[in-house]
Amino acid sequence: MDDHELRAWAYLSRVAEPPNRALADLVSEVGVLETAKAIRKRLVPDRFQAILRATEARAGEDRSAADLAMAASVGARLITRDDPDWPAWRMLPLDSLEESATPLVLWARGTGSLDALADKAISIVGSRAASGYGEHVTGRLAADLVGDGWTVISGGAYGVDGAAHRATLSAGGATVAVLACGIDRHYPVGHDRLLTEIARTGLVVSEYPPGVSPAKHRFLTRNRLVAALGRAVIVTEAGARSGAANTAAWARRIGVPVGAFPGPVNSAMSVGCHRMIRAGDAELVTDSSTVVELAGPIGELALIDPSPGRPTDGLTTVQLMVYDALPSAGDRAVAEIAVECGLPAADVRAALAAMDVSGLVRSDGALWRLA
Amino acid sequence: MDDHELRAWAYLSRVAEPPNRALADLVSEVGVLETAKAIRKRLVPDRFQAILRATEARAGEDRSAADLAMAASVGARLITRDDPDWPAWRMLPLDSLEESATPLVLWARGTGSLDALADKAISIVGSRAASGYGEHVTGRLAADLVGDGWTVISGGAYGVDGAAHRATLSAGGATVAVLACGIDRHYPVGHDRLLTEIARTGLVVSEYPPGVSPAKHRFLTRNRLVAALGRAVIVTEAGARSGAANTAAWARRIGVPVGAFPGPVNSAMSVGCHRMIRAGDAELVTDSSTVVELAGPIGELALIDPSPGRPTDGLTTVQLMVYDALPSAGDRAVAEIAVECGLPAADVRAALAAMDVSGLVRSDGALWRLA
Repeated sequence: MDDHELRAWAYLSRVAEPPNRALADLVSEVGVLETAKAIRKRLVPDRFQAILRATEARAGEDRSAADLAMAASVGARLITRDDPDWPAWRMLPLDSLEESATPLVLWARGTGSLDALADKAISIVGSRAASGYGEHVTGRLAADLVGDGWTVISGGAYGVDGAAHRATLSAGGATVAVLACGIDRHYPVGHDRLLTEIARTGLVVSEYPPGVSPAKHRFLTRNRLVAALGRAVIVTEAGARSGAANTAAWARRIGVPVGAFPGPVNSAMSVGCHRMIRAGDAELVTDSSTVVELAGPIGELALIDPSPGRPTDGLTTVQLMVYDALPSAGDRAVAEIAVECGLPAADVRAALAAMDVSGLVRSDGALWRLA
Repeated sequence: MDDHELRAWAYLSRVAEPPNRALADLVSEVGVLETAKAIRKRLVPDRFQAILRATEARAGEDRSAADLAMAASVGARLITRDDPDWPAWRMLPLDSLEESATPLVLWARGTGSLDALADKAISIVGSRAASGYGEHVTGRLAADLVGDGWTVISGGAYGVDGAAHRATLSAGGATVAVLACGIDRHYPVGHDRLLTEIARTGLVVSEYPPGVSPAKHRFLTRNRLVAALGRAVIVTEAGARSGAANTAAWARRIGVPVGAFPGPVNSAMSVGCHRMIRAGDAELVTDSSTVVELAGPIGELALIDPSPGRPTDGLTTVQLMVYDALPSAGDRAVAEIAVECGLPAADVRAALAAMDVSGLVRSDGALWRLA
C-alpha cells in the first residue's frame, strides 16, 4: 500500500468517532484517497451528508503521520480492509447489521496475522472482579482450548479477561486482546506487561487510533469486535451487571453462539451467567469440549460423556426385580425368589436363565445366587 | 371404612408387586372386596387374566391383619383411593400413563393429611453423596420454601434428601418422606430418628406394605410418587449417575416442571444437574423464587431481580459519549468536548442540555463539568 493511502486510512481512522457506517460506505464507493479529500474539502456526495456532521469536530486536524509513527514505535501497524490480514470472514456479520457496526480499520500491535488468528478462535469474557473460581475455570478453559489449537480472544481487562490471556500464554497459545483505547495506551495500567507479552506472540488490536482514551461507550463498541472475532463467546463468570452481557448481546445479534459457565448459586459473581442461561441467551457450558461443541462449524464434537456402567444397567424391570430378590450372600430357591419379588415362578425362572447367560447369577441346579 | 374392606385393601397391597394397573382397574370395576375374593379364588374376568400371573406367588398368603397391626403399632394407617386424604389431584397424571403407574394404596405414618400436605408442595431430590455445597443450597431452599408456606417432599435418603427434610423441620415446616420400603423399615438406618421426627409433624409414606425391603426397582418405582406429589421437582445437586435423574424423568413424563441447581463446573456432584440443564430436561433455578416461578400455577411469581441502577443508565449513545468526554475533575468547553468525543458541537450542546436537566452535568455558562 502506498504511503498516501496509508496516511488517508489513518486520517479517516480519527476523523470520525468509529464506527461510522456512512464513512465506510463512502470509502467503498470512491476509495480511501477520494474520501479523505472530500472530508477535508467538506464536499461529499448528497447522500453522505451525515459524514460532514460526524467529522465536523476533527476534519481540520490531520494527525495521521504522528499516529502512524506512534504505532510503528510500539511495533504496531494499521490493518485496512484491503489488507490480507483483514479478518473479512469474521467481520461479515457486522457488515450486515443496519447500524454503524463495521470497523473501518484496525490498529494491531504484534506480528501475527489477525485473519489467521481469528480463523479458529473462541472469545472468553467475564467480570473484572472475578472470583478465584472464575479465574480458575477461565484459565482451565483457555489452556484446554490452546491444547486443541484455538486462539483465545478477550478484552485485556482485569479479572476474567486477564486470566484468559495469561492462561493462553502459559499454555504456549496465541491470544488477541481487543482494546477500547489506542494500542499504545496500556489500559488497564496494571496489565502493561501482560499486553506487551500478548503483542509479542499474538496481537493487541483496536479500532481507535493511538492515544485515544478508554471511555464507557468505547467499551460497548469494542465488545462487538470481541464478539465477531470468536466462533463462540463464552462468559466464564459474570455478576449481575457485568459488561460481558453486552458482548453476549452483540454475539447473539450477529449469530455467534454464546455459552455461559454456571457457578455456585450463592456466588454473586455467577448471577449474570445464571440469568443468561435462564433467559435462553446463553447455553450452559462446563468445559472446553462443550465450548467446542457450541462453536460448531469447524467439525469438532464434544466427546460423549463416558459414564461408568453398572452390571445391572442392561436388565429389564423383571430381571432387575429378580436380581434384587437374591441375597448378597447365600442362595435362594426359585419359589422363595418369586415370593420376595412378587412375580410368577415362570417369570423368575426366565429372568434367572437370561441373567445366567450374561454371567450375573449362578445356580447349582436348584438354588440361585449372585455371581 | 369397614374392617373387611380395609383388610381387602391391605391384602391387595401385598398380593402383587406394586404398582399393578390391571389390579387397580379391577378394583375400580368390581370393588375391593370382590377383587380380593376373585384373586383368592383364582377366578378373574377374562380381560384381567394378567392379574393371576402377577399374584401367583403371593395369592395364598394373607398377611393383611398382621400388616395393619404392624402399621398401627408404628402410628401408621392405610390410605386408599376412597379416603379423603387420598391426593387424587396429584395422582391424576399417573393415572393417565399407559403403564402401571397408579398406586393402589399408600401406607402413611404420621397424623397429617397427605392431600392437604401435597396441595402446595415442592419435591427436592439429589445425590446421596451430596457435597457441603449441595447440602447448603438444599437446606437454604427448603427453609425458604417453608417460609412461603410450602411442604417439602423427598425420599428420606442420605445427602440431599436428608438435608431437605432436616431444614424443613428446623424451619418449622411440614415434610413428607416417600420410602421405597415398608413404613416400619427405617431405611437408611442412620435416618431412624429423622424419619420418626418427620412422622411426628409430617408424613412418612410408601406404597409397600410393612416389612418390605428396599430394592433397586422399588427406588425407581418410588421415584414416580416423589415426582407426582410436588408441583415441581427440584434437583439441588446430582452427580453423573444420581437417581435424581430418574425422578426428573418421571416428572417430565407426567408434566411436572423440573428445575436443577447449577454448581461449580469442577464439582463432580453437579455434573448431573448441568447435563439435565444442557439437555433441556431441567430449567436452571437458583433460589426459592425461581423455584416457585417454575412451579407456577398457585400464583406466586419470582420477584424481578432488582439490579442497582447507574446514573448513566438512561442515556443515549451520544449523551454517553459526551458524558465520558467530561473530565472526572475540572471543566471543559463545548469545543474541547466535541474534539474529544468526535461529535459535532451542536450535538454536544444538545446532549449537555439534556443531561443538565436530569442533573448529571453542570455549567457555569461557558464550561461544563460532571455534577
